[in-house]
Amino acid sequence: MPETIPADSVGIVTPQRLHFDAPLRLSSGETLAAYDLVYETYGTLSPQRDNAILVCHALSGDHHAAGFHDPADRKAGWWDNLIGPGKVLDTRRFFVVSLNNLGGCSGSTGPASTNPDTGKVWGPAFPIVTVRDWVESQARLADALGVDCWRAVLGGSLGGMQVLQWSMDYPERVAHAIVIAAAPRLTAQNIAFNEVARQAIRSDPDFQDGFYLERGTQPGRGLRIARMLGHITYLSDDVMREKFGRDLREGRISFDLENVEFEVESYLRYQGDSFVGSFDANTYILMTKALDYYDPAGACGGRLAEALRPAKAKFLVVSFTSDWRFSPARSREIVKALHDNDFDVSYAEIECPHGHDAFLMKIPAYREVMLAYMERVAGELADGG
Amino acid sequence: MPETIPADSVGIVTPQRLHFDAPLRLSSGETLAAYDLVYETYGTLSPQRDNAILVCHALSGDHHAAGFHDPADRKAGWWDNLIGPGKVLDTRRFFVVSLNNLGGCSGSTGPASTNPDTGKVWGPAFPIVTVRDWVESQARLADALGVDCWRAVLGGSLGGMQVLQWSMDYPERVAHAIVIAAAPRLTAQNIAFNEVARQAIRSDPDFQDGFYLERGTQPGRGLRIARMLGHITYLSDDVMREKFGRDLREGRISFDLENVEFEVESYLRYQGDSFVGSFDANTYILMTKALDYYDPAGACGGRLAEALRPAKAKFLVVSFTSDWRFSPARSREIVKALHDNDFDVSYAEIECPHGHDAFLMKIPAYREVMLAYMERVAGELADGG
Repeated sequence: MPETIPADSVGIVTPQRLHFDAPLRLSSGETLAAYDLVYETYGTLSPQRDNAILVCHALSGDHHAAGFHDPADRKAGWWDNLIGPGKVLDTRRFFVVSLNNLGGCSGSTGPASTNPDTGKVWGPAFPIVTVRDWVESQARLADALGVDCWRAVLGGSLGGMQVLQWSMDYPERVAHAIVIAAAPRLTAQNIAFNEVARQAIRSDPDFQDGFYLERGTQPGRGLRIARMLGHITYLSDDVMREKFGRDLREGRISFDLENVEFEVESYLRYQGDSFVGSFDANTYILMTKALDYYDPAGACGGRLAEALRPAKAKFLVVSFTSDWRFSPARSREIVKALHDNDFDVSYAEIECPHGHDAFLMKIPAYREVMLAYMERVAGELADGG
Repeated sequence: MPETIPADSVGIVTPQRLHFDAPLRLSSGETLAAYDLVYETYGTLSPQRDNAILVCHALSGDHHAAGFHDPADRKAGWWDNLIGPGKVLDTRRFFVVSLNNLGGCSGSTGPASTNPDTGKVWGPAFPIVTVRDWVESQARLADALGVDCWRAVLGGSLGGMQVLQWSMDYPERVAHAIVIAAAPRLTAQNIAFNEVARQAIRSDPDFQDGFYLERGTQPGRGLRIARMLGHITYLSDDVMREKFGRDLREGRISFDLENVEFEVESYLRYQGDSFVGSFDANTYILMTKALDYYDPAGACGGRLAEALRPAKAKFLVVSFTSDWRFSPARSREIVKALHDNDFDVSYAEIECPHGHDAFLMKIPAYREVMLAYMERVAGELADGG
């Protein structure tokens, strides 16, 4: 953390926890009898309860989107550059809610939680959850918070898929849907990367068919490989060249297989190592499955416009030119389907070299687009709209 | 194998082996006291010894480029569609030589061979070999076969890098250099993919720091992950969509983490499984290192044209539009450097959806380019050129 907390930070935040004991019927057909959701809020809910914004996280995200948990924290929440007083999601105006999704590993009920029926850790027995299930659980959180209609729901990547699903499942409860660096469904190549990551985890002998917590092991090697691979797909070829080029850590080739020679190798190993110990392998598998399964057009014979027809929100769709994980072409599929329904859509394709990770970054053109859009949203608010 | 051997096949071939006992000084500074190379030849060396063509293999290739080892073989050599009587490399006219590179695992001396100094398997102690070292060992093979000058040297991917190196190291010994789907050096992203593959192998507990053969284990899990990952980079996003789309093996989502659900998952697992048992993990690590290290322009301050200046060959450079591993832009870097030297260069960018793997495939436009070029080469031959 900085010496003093910046003036535009939400400051020190404390995660909250809600217990839900109405059974949740999942897409798989299984039912979760009860569950907890951990979340954070920034800003204040207006007396009219009309200024609430929901932030949906991506594959490895959590509820800690802004501020600091402790003055000693070195890092702020994952979307801190967007959330705070005077920022894009201006907490002087909006009440921002960010939760850890069901199946996650940061406090909400997931594979690392105890199954009350057995008294044991869920592990691989935790049911598969889908984007739709997440939206359902988030709707219950909205109910509990007294939010009838979100002023905006937003998210990047897998988070953007949740935004799309919200607009379809609860048309009356979303005024603005902001879909960033997302896709209406994965390509075969996307699925292939997820599958290699899963296989890396599953083939780690310490994975123990998913019962590693019970047996006191950790599939750290597999999770590390999965994360390294993920990072390749989050960055563009260009930004990797810019960041690392072919730079050698020791200035020259060592001809030693044990050495970390290129800077990019060092970066990946660091990313892999720091993920292990902070993330649960079963959750990683579940999250990639939710990504693979997501296909709202599937039930409509592949016609995305038809799937989106029930939506009533206004949309902002944002993509990044160098994102090859979810390329601008994928965002344009969404925009086309929205246009086909004559919906109110704004689309911005941000020119930048940062790849998929751009959605998390402070990029001036991106910030301006978001700021302009949120001004409009806030304007409606002042008008009582 | 087919019921009968096709008329345009080279037929049944028998690999040959040559032992070299002149010490080979390697780029690393180490010396290999003696080594074997396994190779195949197709066609007949002319009395003038002027019709020899060298084929260089890629990451997981070997010497078996054409024909069958046994009438019961189901598959022909890896470049069989290019090599044979009446084919692009017409064995009625040319004497084609294909070898397994040093450090390989298909018969030539490599990590799985016995180190005569210790009487033990080399394993991880086998020295790192570079593209330059391969060219040196191939030059000795040429000497042994009585080939002073190759009519053409050709290869795809890592094979294409060997072609480039031949043209620089032995300008007088290469008449035509045919560089297919290659790059003058890897990008940071290329290196990153290699590093994840290596880490997958190294973190397999059965890798045993590379001493798996000695200890009776096999790092099959790691090698499998490495191969699955490789296959993602060999195919284009488009061809994956075409081949697999989001097709489900059982027609519907199973919500079962143990199941192989999407066709693309099934394909990758098959590719991974069939690689294990047929390829040596230490060789895989060595080959990826040779790729990472390759950078002929590095010694010339990054100026590729300067590095290529000694070359005297005529060049054909071929790339494939959908290849994102070594994209056409990388081939154009080579073409530009050759043009800067006023060399005789032909360049073909083949429009096709097959990705990097295209260089191994039967693609009409590719075949035509190669055929036309080889007609020119053969024409020089008839003229005694």
